[in-house]
Amino acid sequence: MENFALKAVDALAPEVAVVKPQSAFFEAYGAPGIAVLERVIDHARAAGALVLLDVKRGDIGSTMAAYAAAYLGGVTGLDADAITISPYLGYGSLAPAFDAAKAAGKGLFVLARTSNPEAARLQNAVLDNGKTVAQSIVDQAAAGNAGAAPLGGIGVVVGATIGTGELDLSRLNGPILAPGFGAQGAGVAELRKLFGPSLRGVLPASSRDILRHGPNPAALREQVRRIAASLAG
Amino acid sequence: MENFALKAVDALAPEVAVVKPQSAFFEAYGAPGIAVLERVIDHARAAGALVLLDVKRGDIGSTMAAYAAAYLGGVTGLDADAITISPYLGYGSLAPAFDAAKAAGKGLFVLARTSNPEAARLQNAVLDNGKTVAQSIVDQAAAGNAGAAPLGGIGVVVGATIGTGELDLSRLNGPILAPGFGAQGAGVAELRKLFGPSLRGVLPASSRDILRHGPNPAALREQVRRIAASLAG
Repeated sequence: MENFALKAVDALAPEVAVVKPQSAFFEAYGAPGIAVLERVIDHARAAGALVLLDVKRGDIGSTMAAYAAAYLGGVTGLDADAITISPYLGYGSLAPAFDAAKAAGKGLFVLARTSNPEAARLQNAVLDNGKTVAQSIVDQAAAGNAGAAPLGGIGVVVGATIGTGELDLSRLNGPILAPGFGAQGAGVAELRKLFGPSLRGVLPASSRDILRHGPNPAALREQVRRIAASLAG
Repeated sequence: MENFALKAVDALAPEVAVVKPQSAFFEAYGAPGIAVLERVIDHARAAGALVLLDVKRGDIGSTMAAYAAAYLGGVTGLDADAITISPYLGYGSLAPAFDAAKAAGKGLFVLARTSNPEAARLQNAVLDNGKTVAQSIVDQAAAGNAGAAPLGGIGVVVGATIGTGELDLSRLNGPILAPGFGAQGAGVAELRKLFGPSLRGVLPASSRDILRHGPNPAALREQVRRIAASLAG
């Protein structure tokens, strides 16, 4: 696992803007796996890439502050440039992470409307103000980003496979992490159609579609360049 | 941190049914912190306590399966008897964890209605079938527990500080993890009033109210016995 992960990150980090390790695949090896994740983060940063660590943490109070310290506080080997966070306990419960990110000039991506089929019912449930859960997350992120230039640091996760017009992203003023690109089915045309004028803030994420070429460094690089060319086209 | 954690678990594990470590406080020290968490789990189990690891993980597909392997698969030092999981990506997205728990005879606690003030709006949002998000989580857990005796393995997290009658737990047939007991304000009378006939499945959790007596083993034990006596009374 360490051989695969470090070969992949050494081949890819000089090619891409952001490396997004998935914490679960390292946690699956316990503490030694987390030590490998620390080396992956270190290699990616040394090669000049930003690290967006996909951890989807979400908790309250002192516990959320501990997650923020772990991943945004600059004090552990797991320190990243941005992380994903999960708002089931309420957007406001994530405040310690917003505070930590702002203090360190880092970023956050709050789960809003994900691409998996089981997500629609909960994320489209309706709040007492008539908004859907997902729209409410986007709007609260937008409030946090108001006035920031060129973009605020609070991003959202919106799957590249949801329906066009389902979500109003026009006031977000922050980045959009869009999984579902590549292996999960969305292409460049779908990104354009779905995100429209918000496209400049979209971070399309591809994982399996690249890693299936590993651990061959040349094949990994070639696949990333193929995807980059398709995005530029 | 290791000294405090191991003194606390060595003092408390022989006294209680379940030890619930909070992963965030170990993650805040990076990979070395996770190694300490592995030793905490090992000490707790060696003393005969069950370990409910509070990780609130939630993801989809192969990623959720990796979390299930990490914490329920019997293959890492982080292996626990039960974990907490978060359903923002949809209850159905958690299926790999339900499968892993069932295969291993372990348990899960799905976040349903938590005690923090920021949680109410999202968790009380209304689905297309007219149920609240929280009630829908409880009902899906109930469907998974149907027919199990004495209780099924799918529990829910319901704060001991929410309103009476807000949630129908009568068909759950599974355990209820009730944080909010002690430091967060609920007492034994509130538990009784809130959970009524479901009380036999309630696992009241106390953390800060005990740990503030550490790392003095005798004081920790005394506080746990004080709480146990109040629950029995």
